[in-house]
Amino acid sequence: MSDTFTFSINTKDGAAREGAITTSRGAIRTPAFMPVGTAATVKAVYADQVASAGADIILGNTYHLMLRPGAERVARLGGLHDFMRWPGPILTDSGGFQVMSLSKLRTITEEGVAFQSHLDGSRHMLTPERAIEIQCLLGSDIQMQLDECTALPAPRDDVERAMELSLRWAERSQAAFDMQLRQGGAQPAQALFGIVQGGTDAGLRRRSAEALAALDLPGYAIGGLAVGEGHELMLTTLDQTVGFLPADKPRYLMGVGTPADLMEAVRRGVDMFDCVMPTRSGSHGQAFTWNGRVNLRNARHADDPAPLDPQSACPAARDYSRAYLHHLHRSGEYLAAMLTSWSNTWFYQELMAAMRAAIATGRLDDFVAEHKQRLSEPEAVC
Amino acid sequence: MSDTFTFSINTKDGAAREGAITTSRGAIRTPAFMPVGTAATVKAVYADQVASAGADIILGNTYHLMLRPGAERVARLGGLHDFMRWPGPILTDSGGFQVMSLSKLRTITEEGVAFQSHLDGSRHMLTPERAIEIQCLLGSDIQMQLDECTALPAPRDDVERAMELSLRWAERSQAAFDMQLRQGGAQPAQALFGIVQGGTDAGLRRRSAEALAALDLPGYAIGGLAVGEGHELMLTTLDQTVGFLPADKPRYLMGVGTPADLMEAVRRGVDMFDCVMPTRSGSHGQAFTWNGRVNLRNARHADDPAPLDPQSACPAARDYSRAYLHHLHRSGEYLAAMLTSWSNTWFYQELMAAMRAAIATGRLDDFVAEHKQRLSEPEAVC
Repeated sequence: MSDTFTFSINTKDGAAREGAITTSRGAIRTPAFMPVGTAATVKAVYADQVASAGADIILGNTYHLMLRPGAERVARLGGLHDFMRWPGPILTDSGGFQVMSLSKLRTITEEGVAFQSHLDGSRHMLTPERAIEIQCLLGSDIQMQLDECTALPAPRDDVERAMELSLRWAERSQAAFDMQLRQGGAQPAQALFGIVQGGTDAGLRRRSAEALAALDLPGYAIGGLAVGEGHELMLTTLDQTVGFLPADKPRYLMGVGTPADLMEAVRRGVDMFDCVMPTRSGSHGQAFTWNGRVNLRNARHADDPAPLDPQSACPAARDYSRAYLHHLHRSGEYLAAMLTSWSNTWFYQELMAAMRAAIATGRLDDFVAEHKQRLSEPEAVC
Repeated sequence: MSDTFTFSINTKDGAAREGAITTSRGAIRTPAFMPVGTAATVKAVYADQVASAGADIILGNTYHLMLRPGAERVARLGGLHDFMRWPGPILTDSGGFQVMSLSKLRTITEEGVAFQSHLDGSRHMLTPERAIEIQCLLGSDIQMQLDECTALPAPRDDVERAMELSLRWAERSQAAFDMQLRQGGAQPAQALFGIVQGGTDAGLRRRSAEALAALDLPGYAIGGLAVGEGHELMLTTLDQTVGFLPADKPRYLMGVGTPADLMEAVRRGVDMFDCVMPTRSGSHGQAFTWNGRVNLRNARHADDPAPLDPQSACPAARDYSRAYLHHLHRSGEYLAAMLTSWSNTWFYQELMAAMRAAIATGRLDDFVAEHKQRLSEPEAVC
C-alpha cells in the first residue's frame, strides 16, 4: 500500500528489470501480466482465483464499461473495484483501441472520436478529457491516455498523423488528469500513462517516445503493436522504442501476448503486459503448460488420465484429467472454460514469476533459452 | 460411510419423514435435493461449491454419459466419481426418459429402446440389462431401472401399456443388478430403485406401486410426473401413489421441481428430488431467494447495490450486488451463470435443510404455510 504511485527497480539483468509498482490498492510485482477483465469480469474466472493465481493487477476496458453498465453507474455503485469485487489495483485502457475495432460509424477529429455503440447503435463521443473522466469514475489505479492506434500495415503518412494526434491527446489527457487530481476526482496514488505510437517506423517511434518522455508521465505504454505485424517486427520495433523511454518509469506493452512474446519483451525492458489470450484460449480449449500448448479438443486426450500439469499448484491444472477436460470442451460445458481459463491464468502468472526470479538471479537469457521454443509449440507427444 | 445401503427415518411429521440414506460414499440426509450433473458437471458450478452448498448427492444422466464420453471410457478412467471429482454419492437415471425426449428415431420394443444419438446420429440400443451395465460402469451409488415415461396427456391404454412394460423391465433390471452383485460389477452399498408409472390414473399408479413393492427393491421412484400435468394434478397423483409404497424405503420424485413442488411433496412423504431448475434458471438470470424469485435481467436491478440475500452464507448470494449480477447477465458473461447457478444450488440446499429441521421439530406444516406462497412468486418490490 502506498499514498503515492511509485516504481522501483530491484534488479536488472541486461535490459530486463525486476521491481515493483506501488499503489494505494497494493503493490504490483514487475514484470507483470494483467489478466483482462473486459466487462468487469475476467471471463469464466472468479476474482479470488485470479488473485490466488498470483495476479497483482487486472485490466478493465473503458469502451465496454462506458457502454455497459456505464461509468456514472459504476461510480454510484462505489467504483469498479467494489463492483466486481477485485480489491487490488486495476488498469483501464482509454477506450480508443476498441472504438476502432468494435464500434460503428466512427469519426476521428482533433476533438476526439465520435462513434456508435456496437451494442445498441447509441451515439457517443470519446475525447481525451472524457476518457480521463470515465477512468476516474471507474476509479482505476492506472489510467491510459486516449490515442489513435493505426492498423498495420498502413501508409507512413497515416501512421505519422495518428502518432502526432496521439501526442496532442497525451497533453490534453495530462491536463485533464491534473485537474482531476486538483478537484479530488483522482488521488496521488493513481497514475496516467502515455502511449507511444508510430507503427513500425523507427523514426516515428523515437519522436513519439521522446515527446512523451518530455511530459514526465509516471509510466509509458507502447501501443500499436500486436496488430498484425508479426513477432519479429514487433521485437524490432521494441528495440527501436524502449531506449527512448525513461529508464525509471514502468513500460507497458499493450495487448501482448504469447509466452514467447512476453519473454522477448521482458528481455528488452518491458515491465507490464495484458492480453486476452489466457481466457480466450481457455474458452476455446487451448491450454498453456510448461511443455507447450495443448489443444484439449484433440481426440488424443479422450482417454488420457493425466492432468495438464501434475507439478502445478493450480487445482485446474493439477487435479482434473485431460480426458475430463476434453469431455467438457467437446460437450460445451461452462466448466470447460472455467477450468481451462483458470489454468491458463495461473500459467501466465507462473511464467511472470519465473521471469522475475530469473532476472533477480541474472539468469533471464538462460531461462528464455531453456523455455522459449517449447512454450511456442504444441506439446510434444511421447 | 457404510458397507451396505441403508435407509433410516429419524422423525416423522405427518406423512413427511426426516432421515438418512447410507452408502459407501457417505450419508445422504433426507429429504434430499440432488443437483443435476447431466454431462458429468453441475452446469457452471464447481463440485466443491456443490458440496459446500450442502448437497450430499448429485445426479448424472445415463443417456448423455453413454453417448459422450461413453460408459466404458468412464470406467477405464476410474468411474464417474473420479472422472468429475465428486467424491460423494451419485444417482444415475436409466437413460429412458431422455431417450424419449432427446433422441431421434426411437423404437420401443419388449426388448428395449433402439434410438439414434441426438449428437451424431449413431445407433444405440438401451435395454434394462444394458442400462444396469452402464450404471455399474459409471459406478453410481443409486441406479434406476429402465422405464417408459409417457408424455401427458395420453390415452389410458398407452399409459397402461407403458406402465406394464416398465414393470417387466423392473424385474429384468433387478435380475441384471443381482447378477452384477454376484459378479462384482456392483457392491452391496449400491442400490437399484424401481420406478412407479401410470400417468395420472389412480388405479394404474396403485397397481404399479404394489407390483414394484412386491419386488422388495431398496428404494422407489415416482416417475412420469412433472411432464406437463401441472402442480395440482401432480400432488393428487402423489396422494394416490405414495401410500402404496413401502414406508421403510426411500421415495424419489423424479425431475421435481419448484420450491412449492418440493414442499408439498415432502409433506406427502417424498424423500428425494432432482431438477435442473437451479442451474437452468441460474443461466437464464432467475435467482431463488427466501423472498421469492428474482429476474436479474430486469432493468430495476441495474442500480441496486443490495445483494440477493445479505443473510445467506453463500458468497454468490451475499457478496455481489444485484447491479453487478444484472450487468453480468445482460453482458452474457460466464460469471453470470456461475454466480447465479451457485446461489440457486445453495438456496435449494438451504430449503431442504430447513424442511429437515422443520420435520425434526414437528413444524413442517407451519414452515410450508409461512414460506410456500412467497417462494412461488416474484420477489415483492418495496
